[in-house]
Amino acid sequence: MVEVNGNFYNLKKNYLFVEIEKKVNEYVSKNPNADIIRLGIGDVTLPLCPVIIEAMHDAVDEMAKKETFKGYGPHEGYKFLREAIADYYKKYNVSISSDEIFVSDGAKSDVSGILDIFSSNGNVLIPDPAYPVYVDAAVMSGRNIVYINADESNNFLPLPDYNIEAGIIHLCSPNNPTGAVYSREQLKQWVDYAKKNKAVILFDAAYESFIEDENLPHSIFEIEGAKECAIEFCSFSKNAGFTGVRCGYAVVPKELEINGQSIRDLWARRQSTKFNGASYITQRAAFVALSNEGQEQINKSIEYYKENTKILSKVFSELGIWSIGGKNSPYLWIKCPNNMTSWEFFDYLLEKLNIVGTPGSGFGKNGEGFLRLSAFGSHESTAKAVERLKTIKF
Amino acid sequence: MVEVNGNFYNLKKNYLFVEIEKKVNEYVSKNPNADIIRLGIGDVTLPLCPVIIEAMHDAVDEMAKKETFKGYGPHEGYKFLREAIADYYKKYNVSISSDEIFVSDGAKSDVSGILDIFSSNGNVLIPDPAYPVYVDAAVMSGRNIVYINADESNNFLPLPDYNIEAGIIHLCSPNNPTGAVYSREQLKQWVDYAKKNKAVILFDAAYESFIEDENLPHSIFEIEGAKECAIEFCSFSKNAGFTGVRCGYAVVPKELEINGQSIRDLWARRQSTKFNGASYITQRAAFVALSNEGQEQINKSIEYYKENTKILSKVFSELGIWSIGGKNSPYLWIKCPNNMTSWEFFDYLLEKLNIVGTPGSGFGKNGEGFLRLSAFGSHESTAKAVERLKTIKF
Repeated sequence: MVEVNGNFYNLKKNYLFVEIEKKVNEYVSKNPNADIIRLGIGDVTLPLCPVIIEAMHDAVDEMAKKETFKGYGPHEGYKFLREAIADYYKKYNVSISSDEIFVSDGAKSDVSGILDIFSSNGNVLIPDPAYPVYVDAAVMSGRNIVYINADESNNFLPLPDYNIEAGIIHLCSPNNPTGAVYSREQLKQWVDYAKKNKAVILFDAAYESFIEDENLPHSIFEIEGAKECAIEFCSFSKNAGFTGVRCGYAVVPKELEINGQSIRDLWARRQSTKFNGASYITQRAAFVALSNEGQEQINKSIEYYKENTKILSKVFSELGIWSIGGKNSPYLWIKCPNNMTSWEFFDYLLEKLNIVGTPGSGFGKNGEGFLRLSAFGSHESTAKAVERLKTIKF
Repeated sequence: MVEVNGNFYNLKKNYLFVEIEKKVNEYVSKNPNADIIRLGIGDVTLPLCPVIIEAMHDAVDEMAKKETFKGYGPHEGYKFLREAIADYYKKYNVSISSDEIFVSDGAKSDVSGILDIFSSNGNVLIPDPAYPVYVDAAVMSGRNIVYINADESNNFLPLPDYNIEAGIIHLCSPNNPTGAVYSREQLKQWVDYAKKNKAVILFDAAYESFIEDENLPHSIFEIEGAKECAIEFCSFSKNAGFTGVRCGYAVVPKELEINGQSIRDLWARRQSTKFNGASYITQRAAFVALSNEGQEQINKSIEYYKENTKILSKVFSELGIWSIGGKNSPYLWIKCPNNMTSWEFFDYLLEKLNIVGTPGSGFGKNGEGFLRLSAFGSHESTAKAVERLKTIKF
């Protein structure tokens, strides 16, 4: 007899973004002429950069000829890409070896799959609000979650509480959904806490390219001691626009050991069993994204998106509506006006202004009363959204 | 404090193919001029078909323009591809709805990831020998494995034993590694057993395109009652040559319920949390692979590979070495001559003939004394391997 994994009954019924999509679809089916502006899900809208397109065409052509055709690649990713990623880290004075890098089809797969290698005993520490995948993956595998509050009192950047015992710690900086970014000193506190607790930090750096403040760390490995207690997850989704192309990577330092067991080796074993490598074409594209030319073109896209947060930030300020984020991240975190709940403000924006945001409460209890807007729209649609937002009156 | 998932200590140290790769690399480093012929891992060697290449170029061009750029796709795959897969099943008189199909980055991810939705109580029934992923994924998640013998006595096609209680049943037909294919009547016995035991069959159909005998089933859903007890996994790897492109799919029928819980809905929830969709470009390629033109071109590749099994099969027959498989599958399953163990014959072939096979014992205890050769080499290298094999003398 087979039984269902009962932990699934402890999940919310729908993954947040599926829920939003359903609501929007219902609205559109009733209002087929509505001109919907989507600033909800963090999905990019600019096309891939020319140098990436060229690399993909070349890779496709390689697949067309017997001499250059590529079948299964290494489950951990091609060396050319892993070396390029290691080089990229040098920009931040971080020395990572290419065999500490594991290329994947995206950070979402990695940040959920990594739990496989850890016992389900012990607490999973998750700042609230958080990217729902941390919570749902922990729930699915029957782990105990302890939340720490990220709220206005700590600028949405909670610091360790030594009264809490944690085994696994999820940190995301620049943060999704709040856009808050940890300083070096703050991350050092987390590293110290993790080492004291023999815990491991799962550090989500998916938005690091959006950091413009030179004092802020892009990688947890910029912090002394982090290699002994942290795994970093990164992605080509938000910088190179690979949300539909699919490529991410995990950095698992060799120094990271638990009771003498190399965590890098465990992850290698897990990936070789449950993953068959990322698409070759995708990996060539990611490789070129890291080249000088690729970085130059990508940075133009990032600047483009940042223009959006600037004008969005400005209109909320003019409206007297509190918001943070946007400067070092692609997300604007807005306090719902008029004491509306997150879903009330979501509905208001959808129904009155045809703007889709993401209700903060979908990211956790401290997200209640907030709403996230993303920078990933076009200038045109964001400008149109700004015009509509100006009409808000209570 | 974090602990390692102790189940990992119950795994063999290396995933089989990683182990083989290591051995081959060691040999090559000592014998740099060796002309190695790889008939080990089941990796294709023919380039992608022209119609697929064209579709991929078109998809890359779509990604280059704002109007046609694709970001995140549906986690379950684009409808155009799911509908094409549903259509493909009609060929076998199987009626599947597109919302029962979940596109992924490959069958390996699915066949291991699917365990997430089931309780780890209950036995996992695995025919021995088997694709190592079934075993390793079950071990990693701390499940009890019960093996059933696939050996010469049952033509490597074990049938259900009602004395064994199973929750999850792994079946693979055409079989990897043995090449054996279940008949409809045999699969019906498995369906009856699964229903009686309230078990679920995880049916791996990755090699169905190689079936040429019209009486043999391509899908478990050709069997009456299977929709109430089976999930099917399939892949574009071996037919369309997507081992480096990455695309597979799972079919989870709506009729499949456990205690009133829709298994399709659980898998949808799992995938929306732990997977972010397959690459758009890959999905366009898979779509075209299923078109009439795509199927015509793909079938030529399959015929090409089958020529290889024919000449390999012939040489072993001439040598008086027992072998099966190859007719309805891309694998030849060979009994090691001279009572050699699998690894002895592997070493013999590697060192004396510079041919890489896959030791049968890597697939389980009943694989001991056997070796698998794959049809996926080129005609030239396979013909060269045949010439070398002719020199075998004991």
